[in-house]
Amino acid sequence: MSSMSKNYYDPDRLILVCNDDGIFSPGIRALAEVAKEFGEVSIIAPDRQQSAVGHAITVSDPLRVTSFQINSKMKGQAVNGTPADCVKLGHDKLMGRKPDLVLSGINHGSNAGINIIYSGTVSAATEGTILGYPSIAVSCTEFTESAELTGAQDAARRAVRFVLDHGLPSGITLNVNAPGGPLKGLRWAKQANSRYVEEFEGRIDPHNKPYFWITGRLEILDQGEDLDLNLLNQGYATITPIQYDLTAHNFFKNQSKELT
Amino acid sequence: MSSMSKNYYDPDRLILVCNDDGIFSPGIRALAEVAKEFGEVSIIAPDRQQSAVGHAITVSDPLRVTSFQINSKMKGQAVNGTPADCVKLGHDKLMGRKPDLVLSGINHGSNAGINIIYSGTVSAATEGTILGYPSIAVSCTEFTESAELTGAQDAARRAVRFVLDHGLPSGITLNVNAPGGPLKGLRWAKQANSRYVEEFEGRIDPHNKPYFWITGRLEILDQGEDLDLNLLNQGYATITPIQYDLTAHNFFKNQSKELT
Repeated sequence: MSSMSKNYYDPDRLILVCNDDGIFSPGIRALAEVAKEFGEVSIIAPDRQQSAVGHAITVSDPLRVTSFQINSKMKGQAVNGTPADCVKLGHDKLMGRKPDLVLSGINHGSNAGINIIYSGTVSAATEGTILGYPSIAVSCTEFTESAELTGAQDAARRAVRFVLDHGLPSGITLNVNAPGGPLKGLRWAKQANSRYVEEFEGRIDPHNKPYFWITGRLEILDQGEDLDLNLLNQGYATITPIQYDLTAHNFFKNQSKELT
Repeated sequence: MSSMSKNYYDPDRLILVCNDDGIFSPGIRALAEVAKEFGEVSIIAPDRQQSAVGHAITVSDPLRVTSFQINSKMKGQAVNGTPADCVKLGHDKLMGRKPDLVLSGINHGSNAGINIIYSGTVSAATEGTILGYPSIAVSCTEFTESAELTGAQDAARRAVRFVLDHGLPSGITLNVNAPGGPLKGLRWAKQANSRYVEEFEGRIDPHNKPYFWITGRLEILDQGEDLDLNLLNQGYATITPIQYDLTAHNFFKNQSKELT
């Protein structure tokens, strides 16, 4: 049976849906719609916008949880914390049982290239992976709340089917990015080596005090047809397997045991 | 000349010192003391405790900078942002010229194993690496403000000498951890595969509303004599080369081009 015609729905499958734009973002509703095709959905997400929080966790403040009716069909639990907090707390306390799958997104804005390390969306999925669940982050490169998310939804659907068909090795997270609009194709991709060239904009406030806004443009430092940023520029959606072993193994193996 | 007797001081060398515990932490003063043995020091750090912020950056709020006399010998600039913000803003706006070296720490608390991905201390150093500067994160495994940091200082000193003697390949950050007390030895180490086993503690506030505190213990999922967490448990300081290419290359190369 092809994956297009196979019925993947399983009422016993529990899917945790999180994001970093907050529980009332259109993106999380779009992702929850996709999740519902595969099983029961539990939405646990920050109670407010948490973009660019990276893999922050809340250790010095208590976490509170509020139940919400997100729309007529969806309920959710909002946490006054980060995306990683939501997954940790969901896993430990807020779900009747352990989830089978963690989905994070759909983020409004790309999480490709160097953006991965700043991304709260990806950190929620990475946290799912650390806790032992197959986990997928999904982002749409368009920042606007009115972005057309059908392509990102299709890409998410394909990524979930892939995981259900093949499983996912321990320690690997799938990071999906899609342009706005319909899906042109979903390509396996590598994280492009890239950085932001920052230009902080200095301003003076009405009280004559200076402040700075971060601005910047993304610069690709890498070449190749299989890089996430390049494929996205060509209109494709991308799926990048990522991992959190940060050791630079080649460098490590050339060092002696002790540094004096 | 051995590295112990060589004079490494260069008045033209500019060193950016950052941390995540905030500009008034004892750890940043201890690291700045070491930095001064190597050149001119510019301290740019968060204006308050920022532990476990991960690689967060501030995009929706303006950043403000305040100059401080930290003690009779040290001045610094405090930023109302994250460690990564401090390094970005320092590099772009707050230093008379570009730094030659970025040091982050000394953090009060270990940044070994899975802690690396939650660490603001490490993220400041990683940000330095992304911006093209040789960068070192330094942490002491003792949480207390009164921790004896001489061992961490010695380890930091050795790491800086290593970088000045050998350089550091583009994209690699050095992550140093040391127990409290004098240095037993500094060993090259790999990041141990590990995770937190969380037990959120639920409480009821005086207004009869529930809240949760994160608690947990670190679990090592890996075996080996060269792992950071294991060497630290044996009383050694560790130095781990880390990198931010998160692609799971072995998994990637086994996939076809397109996911349908």
